[in-house]
Amino acid sequence: MNKHPCTPPAPGDNIAALLTPALVVDLDAMQRNLQRMADFARQHRLRLRPHAKMHKCAAIAKLQIAAGAVGVCVQKLSEAEALAAAGITDLFISNEVIDPAKLTRVAELAGRVTLAIAVDSKLGVERLALAMQSAGSQIDVFVEVDVGQGRCGVAPTAAGALAQQVVAHASAGLRFAGLQAYHGRAQHLRSAAEREAAIHHAASLARAAQATVTAAGIHCPLVTGAGTGSFTFEAASGLWGELQAGSYLFMDRDYAENQPAPGAPVFEQALFIKSQVISRGEAHAVVDAGHKTYAIDSGLPTVWQRSDLTVTNGGDEHGILHPAPHASADVLPQLGDIVWLVPGHCDPTVNLHDHLVAVRGGLSDGVVETVWAVDARGCVS
Amino acid sequence: MNKHPCTPPAPGDNIAALLTPALVVDLDAMQRNLQRMADFARQHRLRLRPHAKMHKCAAIAKLQIAAGAVGVCVQKLSEAEALAAAGITDLFISNEVIDPAKLTRVAELAGRVTLAIAVDSKLGVERLALAMQSAGSQIDVFVEVDVGQGRCGVAPTAAGALAQQVVAHASAGLRFAGLQAYHGRAQHLRSAAEREAAIHHAASLARAAQATVTAAGIHCPLVTGAGTGSFTFEAASGLWGELQAGSYLFMDRDYAENQPAPGAPVFEQALFIKSQVISRGEAHAVVDAGHKTYAIDSGLPTVWQRSDLTVTNGGDEHGILHPAPHASADVLPQLGDIVWLVPGHCDPTVNLHDHLVAVRGGLSDGVVETVWAVDARGCVS
Repeated sequence: MNKHPCTPPAPGDNIAALLTPALVVDLDAMQRNLQRMADFARQHRLRLRPHAKMHKCAAIAKLQIAAGAVGVCVQKLSEAEALAAAGITDLFISNEVIDPAKLTRVAELAGRVTLAIAVDSKLGVERLALAMQSAGSQIDVFVEVDVGQGRCGVAPTAAGALAQQVVAHASAGLRFAGLQAYHGRAQHLRSAAEREAAIHHAASLARAAQATVTAAGIHCPLVTGAGTGSFTFEAASGLWGELQAGSYLFMDRDYAENQPAPGAPVFEQALFIKSQVISRGEAHAVVDAGHKTYAIDSGLPTVWQRSDLTVTNGGDEHGILHPAPHASADVLPQLGDIVWLVPGHCDPTVNLHDHLVAVRGGLSDGVVETVWAVDARGCVS
Repeated sequence: MNKHPCTPPAPGDNIAALLTPALVVDLDAMQRNLQRMADFARQHRLRLRPHAKMHKCAAIAKLQIAAGAVGVCVQKLSEAEALAAAGITDLFISNEVIDPAKLTRVAELAGRVTLAIAVDSKLGVERLALAMQSAGSQIDVFVEVDVGQGRCGVAPTAAGALAQQVVAHASAGLRFAGLQAYHGRAQHLRSAAEREAAIHHAASLARAAQATVTAAGIHCPLVTGAGTGSFTFEAASGLWGELQAGSYLFMDRDYAENQPAPGAPVFEQALFIKSQVISRGEAHAVVDAGHKTYAIDSGLPTVWQRSDLTVTNGGDEHGILHPAPHASADVLPQLGDIVWLVPGHCDPTVNLHDHLVAVRGGLSDGVVETVWAVDARGCVS
């Protein structure tokens, strides 16, 4: 339905030729990030199932799987369908689906790929079982536990009863796969000690949940969760068997502001917005990228490697640059200059774009190596 | 490049069948808004050129034009190209373009449609003239004046000199069309008196700019600008000849919080997110719509006609509902219930979606009348 008049860039184009604003991936940095996380998971004998809600791109998911990931997570059914249509065969919808019409599609999808889903209610399990009953296929079911996020998930004490419910529907194709235990709010606590404490608490809640499952006579095969801000702590806990981090691949301003965790792999910024100065005042410059180009739910972007410039909100289509408090107006870029921005939050920024331009050789003189479709862009249902 | 697996709804579908989350337009409300603004412009003998950056949809632009609008504004070249490709023939890019490669496309587009553009620099005029020179067509050029927004636009004292520059390039096809004078920051000052004062000040700056144009011996055909929060004041000024309001058609939570201006037409909320409760806690409910479904640059959504519920940020794909301070937990919707949200800001919310589902007969029992493509979704370049 989308009718973009702009021809996307082609492999071989110089980075200088990219029209602004453009969402650009530094391929060299991304591949180092990819390898560092794959190495970390391998060294810690943990499964890695990166969250594809970040990139929504089957080509990138395939690179992650080729490097050792067991599959990917998604957050929505339509995301799973889009990635399955593009060739991804092992998907975990790490979220609840309650609509019978959608659950029918979940069951259909479970017949085509290895599929898992999260549940946190008796109604959800019953409806899932009803949908699966007639499909004749199997689905892995994770009971989601609220381990501090305060969003979805049952209380730890209720996990065993819900696992029993799942097991009771084994004949419908439901296979109890373990616990979904993700603490989203822990990811951006700025000090490593705060994040460690939050995951320590999450682990105690997940262990309590696991105990109720065991007490119900059910084997709990796996605890899955963790994000880019906290995964070293989940890994150290001995409890989680699978890591779901996603942002590590591209990174963003928000994660860059975290104090690194001791011993954590270093991830480089790999996602950028190429923008251009389209207006200059005496004490400010205006670039052609606003919050229709980068998401600002986690704050504004920064200018890459330019601490002498600050960005303020210029609306949907503009960003306004000022000299930082210690800098003079001389540092402002001139009319027509290119300005590289680091988005505040990678996931919803990628979701604004139809493609990712992957560049080899850096931002100043790189060449487009490939253009990736954001296959599941806008797939919110 | 977009491969949505979800079949969009079809005309005739009942609103109950729409999968969540869905972006829904109440057609009855929208058409009343459309008519009220058209009537206002007609009664005040003003040109109406609604800003299509809000809906990015050619079908809606055609309805506006059929009701009397002279054409539409857009904010980006690629938006203009997308709407031109879908049949819109009178477009104003109310923004600066400085890249020669884009200006070549501006010139090409000017050969296919009636096109106008804004400028605020000598370099911009020179590059535009260079691009137009070889195209052999004409373009209307508005000198943008900063009337309080602090973003793009020349100082009022510099308008005459830039208009002279435009006129000097008449042989290249540049036609000085007047002044672009839009005060974005005035739109959401909450009291009508504050907005009136801001536009009063903007008018004094625009008049000063106009005087420098006249002093340069140049006729200033038109002052164009105004938004949904302020247009009654621009209309009353006797200075502006064209109104660019866009949000009036759909409205949003942010505009609803404005104190109405005296004598202003009343615009109804016409844009909604249909969402569903996918998880329930003892004291909160979680819906399946987060900030990948609605933009939060102007704050969170509210629940339509439910002042007993509050919405907090649940991340990319979740919204969290709590009882309002005066309400009990009994008011929370149940698992599976439908919840209608009013987005904080209509423009970037529409830009997240590939289509708008237009429903006749209200939210409780309406029927899909049409599904509109968001033709220029993601067109940021």
